[in-house]
Amino acid sequence: MISVILLGAGNVATHLYKAFSKSETIAVKQWYNRTRASISSYANEVDITDALVELKKADIYIMAVSDDSIEKLSQDLPFTNRLVAHTSGSVSMHDLDKKNQIAVFYPLQTFSKDAAINFNEVPICVEVYEKQNLQLLKDLAEALGCKSHKITTEQRRVLHLAAVFVNNFTNQLYRVGHEICETKNIDFNILKPLIAETAKKVQTITPYMAQTGPAKRGDKKTIKKQLKLIENEEHEVIYKLLTSSIKKTHGQR
Amino acid sequence: MISVILLGAGNVATHLYKAFSKSETIAVKQWYNRTRASISSYANEVDITDALVELKKADIYIMAVSDDSIEKLSQDLPFTNRLVAHTSGSVSMHDLDKKNQIAVFYPLQTFSKDAAINFNEVPICVEVYEKQNLQLLKDLAEALGCKSHKITTEQRRVLHLAAVFVNNFTNQLYRVGHEICETKNIDFNILKPLIAETAKKVQTITPYMAQTGPAKRGDKKTIKKQLKLIENEEHEVIYKLLTSSIKKTHGQR
Repeated sequence: MISVILLGAGNVATHLYKAFSKSETIAVKQWYNRTRASISSYANEVDITDALVELKKADIYIMAVSDDSIEKLSQDLPFTNRLVAHTSGSVSMHDLDKKNQIAVFYPLQTFSKDAAINFNEVPICVEVYEKQNLQLLKDLAEALGCKSHKITTEQRRVLHLAAVFVNNFTNQLYRVGHEICETKNIDFNILKPLIAETAKKVQTITPYMAQTGPAKRGDKKTIKKQLKLIENEEHEVIYKLLTSSIKKTHGQR
Repeated sequence: MISVILLGAGNVATHLYKAFSKSETIAVKQWYNRTRASISSYANEVDITDALVELKKADIYIMAVSDDSIEKLSQDLPFTNRLVAHTSGSVSMHDLDKKNQIAVFYPLQTFSKDAAINFNEVPICVEVYEKQNLQLLKDLAEALGCKSHKITTEQRRVLHLAAVFVNNFTNQLYRVGHEICETKNIDFNILKPLIAETAKKVQTITPYMAQTGPAKRGDKKTIKKQLKLIENEEHEVIYKLLTSSIKKTHGQR
């Protein structure tokens, strides 16, 4: 049994709490947040607190707080030589105060308040300063049913950057598609199978192999027609940039 | 039973052929392509030809050829007053020679040679010039297990434009993610669950609601750090443009 104390109350913290609670080999011993109200609805199932001095002893303290709060919170912890991990994609492990043993437990996934997550499919990127803690982090990932990957701080940062492209930026393209449909009274639902299939294809073939469409074919006529159709200037700039990027990738002029 | 003659041998044609063949209420009477070699491997299961004069009679002729070939091929058909449909997202129905009855049967999906398609989930956008043909097109879509949507030429063009954003451009962002991982020896597989989840989320919530990440939060520190991390100039331009687009959508400066 791994005892965990969770710190923070955002999307990641909430999804982690739910996943930890479901696991039979993890005990969430306590849940801290600086404002009690955000987690008070869980008070009947877990010990909650808004006071750092009240923190109990646990195998690992998981800090799922905003990037900017990590350093300060780690300094404010009223104990030493325990295992403390943050969950951020972009913050260095060394921003954690070394009065404790430090680590990173970064679930590479997108967490929204309203979307349930199948944690089994979340890769966990782990990093430790004290080697002896690696196994515990791996065990914790495994207890969630997750694959863990030992990566360096630089690799984690690069992964986080790549994640912004395939997740946030991709989602913004969905948003543009939604806007385009809305202006012409077209049901966005018609695009949903295409969105699903586009993501599904690259699970088994490379994005390079999966590419289709006018830019890849170098189909100037269609590209010209589509540019004429675009009414929003921002959409036009995105269209031009990504068309040129695809052309370059696939050797079209 | 709907008898179909298929023209063309590209990705769309091949996927349509397979889907038509599976349906118990569709008979593929013949498959035409200007070069026989591309379809000769199917010669034992369907009548194939490379000569337009050999085309038999059928309820509908489905032209799944490149956009640029549609007009000419429709003119070259050696018969009149039969039902001819093209499958393009961007070509006007009126590019089809009106010596025949004309229509559009546009499957809104991405077709790659190497990726099998579950046709049940492909929305078919249909358009007819002669009203009496609408039912046959709807029946054809239904025989494939597909939902059909009656849309106008302009709506189809706009949908095709939106499709380029959510499919081709999205796939290019996957490609960028792949490139970023490759340069740092990171396994692209780690990103696949995130890609799948990003597409899954917008099946039930709007892209606006689904957005997360540094640009949405207006997290300037992370954005600055990530920009420093980017080594490829093209990636940098895409990063800046889509970050600013997300900021605008979500009211960040």
